[in-house]
Amino acid sequence: MTEFVSAISSKNISLELSTKLLEAAVEKGKELGMPFSISIVDRVGNLKAFSAMDNAPVLSLDIAQNKAFSAATYNRATHEWYDRLKDDPPLLHGLVHTERLVIFGGGYPIKIDGELIGGIGVSGGHYTHDMQVCEAALEVLEQLTTKAV
Amino acid sequence: MTEFVSAISSKNISLELSTKLLEAAVEKGKELGMPFSISIVDRVGNLKAFSAMDNAPVLSLDIAQNKAFSAATYNRATHEWYDRLKDDPPLLHGLVHTERLVIFGGGYPIKIDGELIGGIGVSGGHYTHDMQVCEAALEVLEQLTTKAV
Amino acid sequence: MTEFVSAISSKNISLELSTKLLEAAVEKGKELGMPFSISIVDRVGNLKAFSAMDNAPVLSLDIAQNKAFSAATYNRATHEWYDRLKDDPPLLHGLVHTERLVIFGGGYPIKIDGELIGGIGVSGGHYTHDMQVCEAALEVLEQLTTKAV
Amino acid sequence: MTEFVSAISSKNISLELSTKLLEAAVEKGKELGMPFSISIVDRVGNLKAFSAMDNAPVLSLDIAQNKAFSAATYNRATHEWYDRLKDDPPLLHGLVHTERLVIFGGGYPIKIDGELIGGIGVSGGHYTHDMQVCEAALEVLEQLTTKAV
Repeated sequence: MTEFVSAISSKNISLELSTKLLEAAVEKGKELGMPFSISIVDRVGNLKAFSAMDNAPVLSLDIAQNKAFSAATYNRATHEWYDRLKDDPPLLHGLVHTERLVIFGGGYPIKIDGELIGGIGVSGGHYTHDMQVCEAALEVLEQLTTKAV
Repeated sequence: MTEFVSAISSKNISLELSTKLLEAAVEKGKELGMPFSISIVDRVGNLKAFSAMDNAPVLSLDIAQNKAFSAATYNRATHEWYDRLKDDPPLLHGLVHTERLVIFGGGYPIKIDGELIGGIGVSGGHYTHDMQVCEAALEVLEQLTTKAV
Repeated sequence: MTEFVSAISSKNISLELSTKLLEAAVEKGKELGMPFSISIVDRVGNLKAFSAMDNAPVLSLDIAQNKAFSAATYNRATHEWYDRLKDDPPLLHGLVHTERLVIFGGGYPIKIDGELIGGIGVSGGHYTHDMQVCEAALEVLEQLTTKAV
Repeated sequence: MTEFVSAISSKNISLELSTKLLEAAVEKGKELGMPFSISIVDRVGNLKAFSAMDNAPVLSLDIAQNKAFSAATYNRATHEWYDRLKDDPPLLHGLVHTERLVIFGGGYPIKIDGELIGGIGVSGGHYTHDMQVCEAALEVLEQLTTKAV
């Protein structure tokens, strides 16, 4: 007989890790010489930590948050959507209208040992720049989580 | 002389039937090995019954509800939209912005003897998976309604 | 030296438990002879399971969801708010405008061993009726969780 | 003859200062032993920096942001509203419905030399706690701006 399951466990990104990721992202932004908005959300897409670099475009504030939301709530990097949509017309013309769903680069799930704990979203440059900023943050994640959990 | 009509009757899905459909949908979801959100609405699109399988993507919660809403409020399965839109640019580029309208698979009207009584919407996989889950639920509807009304 | 904390763990209500609570709530609703809407959310307030009894007032659909949301996202039963607000005019006139916050009875946190795992919200009668329906569901929770975790 | 004015200057809080204020606020939150959400906005109310302490109530995420928004966009601490409203029924019953306006404590304008540069908002405890957290952050502001500008 299978046991009755009353609750399921999940992990969420800590503020401590979120702050480290923001720092690394801002560092990368300075290196690129462009002002970005950077958003960290927990695994259900709720805002956890946020930094807007000085003079970041106002439009980037929401886009960064929506990218982080998209990445966490579907557990998929935002740049991975387009290849899955481009030959599937109903999705290409339909899914893109989903509120807060971003289908271009700059949003990544944050995982520890393969388990989703949150998302990061960056906006301010072309999405290829935004992706570089995310990747700089996620490198720090890897360094930190290799050392300790 | 035509009779004066003071009221019109309509039927709405019962909670009892809704619960049966949800059970069948969850069963199918387990068989596919993916966590889905499943929504049942009444004939005017109001939420009647809902189940989110454990670890269903957060994004699927609203999409499932919007698919059920779309199917019931236009009395059309959501996968039937695209073929009607694709050669009609004003609709293809315009109608898709209708709030809550979903134009890809995973939403079906629920009917008894051809009469609309509600809608079902499923989200969590590719829409082909979502459609399988809906169809499993609608098979139960057919079995139940063949036996009795 | 304190250890670096990269993630925090939390538990969420399962669909299996949610379904049991809905059944108990509907049972109580039938006993009271009134149609209720009953909503179960997880610990961050996302919809997990929902039932609208046949002929439940349309207005009750959203109120039930908002009560469950309020109870889970502030970890407080909705009927406990008023006594804390009534002699604190800035809150009494201000806090009540918080979107989705309900300050009358019919929403309860769902906890296991003192840990928040979700919320239940009921609407359809006077809030004293709604509270009875919630309590009937939470009694089942207690029975189930005393037997197993 | 008055001069033709083609542009007006304004100052906005920097990310560097915002980060310092967040750190001081989180420190105070730990001292109080409660998890708070802390939001910093610029002088027009746009999000600049944000931290949600681990296990902060979900409801506090938006309230903190709305308090910071209210304080900056009206250049008034949120706790100063009630005394101005309480004997003015049209405002007391009308103004409180303004979207995002919070009229209880926990939101403060951020100023340098009397000039508005942003706002801070805190939520998670009773508003008297939230105010203590804000004040701890604003003390740091004073220390920093006494030393240099």
